Amino acid sequence: MVVSLRLEATCHHTGARAGELVTPHGTIPTPAFAPVASIGVVKTLSPKELKGVGVGVLLANAYHLMLRPGLEVISALGGLHRFMAWDGPVVTDSGGYQVFSLARLVRVGEEGVLFRSHIDGSQQSLSPEAAVALQEGLGADIMMVLDQPTPYGAGRDAVATAAQRTGRWAERCLGARQGRGELWAIVQGGTFTDLRRESASHMASLGFPGYAIGGLSLGESREVMWGMVEASVAPLPPASPRYLMGVGSPEELVEAVARGVDLLDSALPTRIARNGSLFTRRGRINITNSRFQGRESPVEDGCPCYLCRTYSAAYLSHLFRTGETLGLRLATLHNLTFLQRLMAEMRMVIQDGGFSRFREGFLAGYRPTDEAVRLARRRRAGKGE
Amino acid sequence: MVVSLRLEATCHHTGARAGELVTPHGTIPTPAFAPVASIGVVKTLSPKELKGVGVGVLLANAYHLMLRPGLEVISALGGLHRFMAWDGPVVTDSGGYQVFSLARLVRVGEEGVLFRSHIDGSQQSLSPEAAVALQEGLGADIMMVLDQPTPYGAGRDAVATAAQRTGRWAERCLGARQGRGELWAIVQGGTFTDLRRESASHMASLGFPGYAIGGLSLGESREVMWGMVEASVAPLPPASPRYLMGVGSPEELVEAVARGVDLLDSALPTRIARNGSLFTRRGRINITNSRFQGRESPVEDGCPCYLCRTYSAAYLSHLFRTGETLGLRLATLHNLTFLQRLMAEMRMVIQDGGFSRFREGFLAGYRPTDEAVRLARRRRAGKGE
Repeated sequence: MVVSLRLEATCHHTGARAGELVTPHGTIPTPAFAPVASIGVVKTLSPKELKGVGVGVLLANAYHLMLRPGLEVISALGGLHRFMAWDGPVVTDSGGYQVFSLARLVRVGEEGVLFRSHIDGSQQSLSPEAAVALQEGLGADIMMVLDQPTPYGAGRDAVATAAQRTGRWAERCLGARQGRGELWAIVQGGTFTDLRRESASHMASLGFPGYAIGGLSLGESREVMWGMVEASVAPLPPASPRYLMGVGSPEELVEAVARGVDLLDSALPTRIARNGSLFTRRGRINITNSRFQGRESPVEDGCPCYLCRTYSAAYLSHLFRTGETLGLRLATLHNLTFLQRLMAEMRMVIQDGGFSRFREGFLAGYRPTDEAVRLARRRRAGKGE
Repeated sequence: MVVSLRLEATCHHTGARAGELVTPHGTIPTPAFAPVASIGVVKTLSPKELKGVGVGVLLANAYHLMLRPGLEVISALGGLHRFMAWDGPVVTDSGGYQVFSLARLVRVGEEGVLFRSHIDGSQQSLSPEAAVALQEGLGADIMMVLDQPTPYGAGRDAVATAAQRTGRWAERCLGARQGRGELWAIVQGGTFTDLRRESASHMASLGFPGYAIGGLSLGESREVMWGMVEASVAPLPPASPRYLMGVGSPEELVEAVARGVDLLDSALPTRIARNGSLFTRRGRINITNSRFQGRESPVEDGCPCYLCRTYSAAYLSHLFRTGETLGLRLATLHNLTFLQRLMAEMRMVIQDGGFSRFREGFLAGYRPTDEAVRLARRRRAGKGE
């Protein structure tokens, strides 16, 4: 196995665990958060800046990259790492989620999926075999199987059919692998506990070196989501890495880690940054709020990010009010710094035996976005970046 | 005098000169190019990056800053340097040029100018005294007198009237100065040689510590422009710094320096960067051109900027094609690196006695944008950033 998890410590009260994920492009501490570089760039940031704030691993999107600039261009230039000048590990999503959330005229059959590009309407297709070939061509360290997620609110039959197809596709993906990069499974099953268990058990029986949990945070309540995470994790082999896809607000990172998740990705922290929404220990603030127009203190006292070390909140407010793109970058740097520190802190307290206490303290101080508002937003907007 | 020019070398064949400009915020080598930070930011870049590419001095705009965020906010936060986290020298334009090119319903009288903000239509005014107070409040190292430029094509009488008024306003600005920052004159006179000479002589008679040449590069041919620069420079005291405003393409920098200009500013290098236009030793290229889509080499071989050291031209092309803001930043860094290297090289060859030869060689290799295309663009677009 070229990618493996070395577990170093587990929490006695929760499922939280700390370790290291060893990859061909370096070893990263876990639990880890992967910012989203859909199209070969974490929006607004350079690799130097990502390293500077402690980012160790990125998620890129095979769907976006196959459309622009195309596999041929990236291959000819020596692969995705070299193309985007990122020398750390890269996880690629197979494109399953993006096809079903972004593409048009999607027709899915046992063979694979036909769709039209959301960019130019061109006819495209993906099969389990093609998805693996694409990700191998990009040079991913960790590839994902082609999956068929179902939208929030899909009925039991539709979800069961899709989850079972995802299972058959996963077997074909395994068979198609040529040996470059590691291939991880994706557990589906919507919001049905038994379907989640079934999907996870089937994936585990295929002996993947790592397992993702997909199809969550799409509009279901948090209570339901955590139930589904637990049902998905339970049948998985304890020694294997677990990756919760598309989940990335601070309180969700803490709750996911408490349930034994080792890796997460989400476009949320970078996307909301570009809307002026910044994480602080007490919750999110929005810098476009008029109360920040004359504020001399930084966005968060004591934050070591470039924004907070260098500028008043008033300056960031000015950049957003005048539409200056430097503001988008500074806000993105801040949010990623916040999450990297949070992950590092969790890793430390898991090793010290203090995770439960940390979790309590963090959640008591952090005011999450109102649940109803959050759900309405998710259901309306989808999450594809 | 808190700002002074130390001349170190002059060219025997041209008017080119090398030296140092001493300011309260540090000493910068001349000839120098000042990127434009209209509203307190060089678009897309942080101060750290500006320092990294060798930028020593910035131009900010009193007009933009008085509208957003307003003098009160900047004063309360400790002045413009602290607000924008730039510890090097700052030149502020008085607002004259912006009022006449951007604002609406402009009414000019002997007292000053009334206008409506181009942002929200609010009623605003500037007088020579108010322009000085505003720039002193911002904490500029070098302030400019309030001037009345005339548009390209204005008739002789209108130009003469405006230039004479600029002269009277310059005297009032001198009288209004409270002693913080240095105040420089602006020579006007449109494209009339005798009016340029008259304006420069009058300004020189007032004994300013530095002199700018304004109202050029607005649509006149280059031949006419250089004639006007020569007519403006001739009457000025040789020991004083000379600043050509709003001129900044590579070939113009070389020609301006050849005529004894010590300082220039322009939004052009940063603005065209955001349109994908990049300087190379052979002329401008546009990265959105399809020939760069698969190009493995950097934008310019041997260029030490972050873009060229890190990425293929193909990657920058990808960023522009997908609308990623990182591309705007990388292109801006490249263009400013190009100009900073050009200025440093000119300074060196002036000191070595090789300026004339350098100028010839540079201009022989650099293909400027076609004159007719350039003029049409300028006349159509204006230059205000």
